[in-house]
Amino acid sequence: MIKIAYLGIPGSYSYLAVRNFLGKTKFTMKNKSTFEDVFLSVKSNEADYAAVPLENSLTGSIIECYDFLLKTNIKIVGEIILKINHHLVANIKFKRKNFHDKKFSLTCLTQQEVLKQCRCFFMKNKHISPILINDTANAAKTVSESIKVDEVAISSKEAAKIYNLQILSKNIADFDINFTRFVILAKHQLKSGNKVSLMFSVKHIPGSLVQAIGSYAKFGLNLMKIESRPISGKPWEYIFYLDFDITNKSRRLESVIKDMKKNTEFIKILGIYQKGEIYET
Amino acid sequence: MIKIAYLGIPGSYSYLAVRNFLGKTKFTMKNKSTFEDVFLSVKSNEADYAAVPLENSLTGSIIECYDFLLKTNIKIVGEIILKINHHLVANIKFKRKNFHDKKFSLTCLTQQEVLKQCRCFFMKNKHISPILINDTANAAKTVSESIKVDEVAISSKEAAKIYNLQILSKNIADFDINFTRFVILAKHQLKSGNKVSLMFSVKHIPGSLVQAIGSYAKFGLNLMKIESRPISGKPWEYIFYLDFDITNKSRRLESVIKDMKKNTEFIKILGIYQKGEIYET
Repeated sequence: MIKIAYLGIPGSYSYLAVRNFLGKTKFTMKNKSTFEDVFLSVKSNEADYAAVPLENSLTGSIIECYDFLLKTNIKIVGEIILKINHHLVANIKFKRKNFHDKKFSLTCLTQQEVLKQCRCFFMKNKHISPILINDTANAAKTVSESIKVDEVAISSKEAAKIYNLQILSKNIADFDINFTRFVILAKHQLKSGNKVSLMFSVKHIPGSLVQAIGSYAKFGLNLMKIESRPISGKPWEYIFYLDFDITNKSRRLESVIKDMKKNTEFIKILGIYQKGEIYET
Repeated sequence: MIKIAYLGIPGSYSYLAVRNFLGKTKFTMKNKSTFEDVFLSVKSNEADYAAVPLENSLTGSIIECYDFLLKTNIKIVGEIILKINHHLVANIKFKRKNFHDKKFSLTCLTQQEVLKQCRCFFMKNKHISPILINDTANAAKTVSESIKVDEVAISSKEAAKIYNLQILSKNIADFDINFTRFVILAKHQLKSGNKVSLMFSVKHIPGSLVQAIGSYAKFGLNLMKIESRPISGKPWEYIFYLDFDITNKSRRLESVIKDMKKNTEFIKILGIYQKGEIYET
């Protein structure tokens, strides 16, 4: 059976990404608490695949993940996008009237980013005080095991289902637009797909970035993402993350990489894969 | 006297950015708890200037801040870079032997990102359990007011000084490279400077991004940063953040913007300013 490592505990968004990505395929899952452990599990063959978040529409690229893609030879072989929805949840024994009674003080376990995204909800519900916790699935798990009558949490619908929680209030985020892009990792590189991700740095010559990007115009390829980040320890030097459409014409991939190399210091393909679909959480 | 708004409480990194940026200039400071309140205080003339973080070398661009630069007419008029150092601190009454005695259990107030950056420290010091808190300066303030004998925190040296704390262990982060770039905001746009920040989106024509960036090569301008981000509510459409060197030749600024407009859907100058210097914290 396929073994898949993921970040977090059952119910985490990486866990949900795997379940949605694989559908009815049978697999066993291995939960890991750090990016390092996830990458290590693939490298050491403990897992055949792994799922990690790479980018969020509200908070941007997850640099820690890009750093491991750079340091290791683990490749991106798939992609899936989750629409993140935040719900107020509680233990099945929690009395709903305690939530509606604004004189009853409640504490709410929530991850810091999630808290920021639900500011209006807490402004309107002053009887609910947030307590920070490291992870959304952990918030759900904690209230499922708690005997406190005044403790609630913010989690996804799926995590609430896994931990047998009741949903007190649906979609409590201030804004509706919140997507996280997950990638599926493996030791091998796929030969075909319709999307390519790579990292590169340019030569120390004025205009080299523009020239390097110009290769895509030359071969009629569409850039989907480009992002620069300072290189650790080398102030004013940048590394670039780039995604582009390829539509199965692998010869163009070879040509564009060859053309880019005239202007780049280094270049590394992170993976060739099929563009991901969007799933609700 | 100049009035400056900043994110967080006294001792926050935005606070330190202001103090270092202004040096001996006299000013009054107004602390604000959200990006929205910071921008609002400048817009409403409650403050003449404001200081906010825009980018961190480990976690990337702070999209919330870019969103307010896009939505408002507040401009970047200055820049300062802080080298972020994490130290273990405690109330002045805390007994140092309690830290060195590994049989004595301690709790440590820390912000989630900071905790991630100090993982090795907590692996080596199993007697210290982290408790999450929203902000590093708040961690320092809380232990300064606490009478608990087993509570410590992670903060900057400056925050420790402000709250009269003792430093138990210096530089406890796993990696040494951690910079945050802060910008100084005002209602007006400066006429000169050596760096320009802008946002743009490209026309829906293949190659338009490459053409837009090509304008910089044409006018011999050096790109410092380029980053794409999905536009909220418009899947597969991107907005770009771009920084470039200008060296006081404002005519080239007009020319490059005019040239870019052939290929952009919209373009907005976020500010013209002097490149920032680096300060230790």
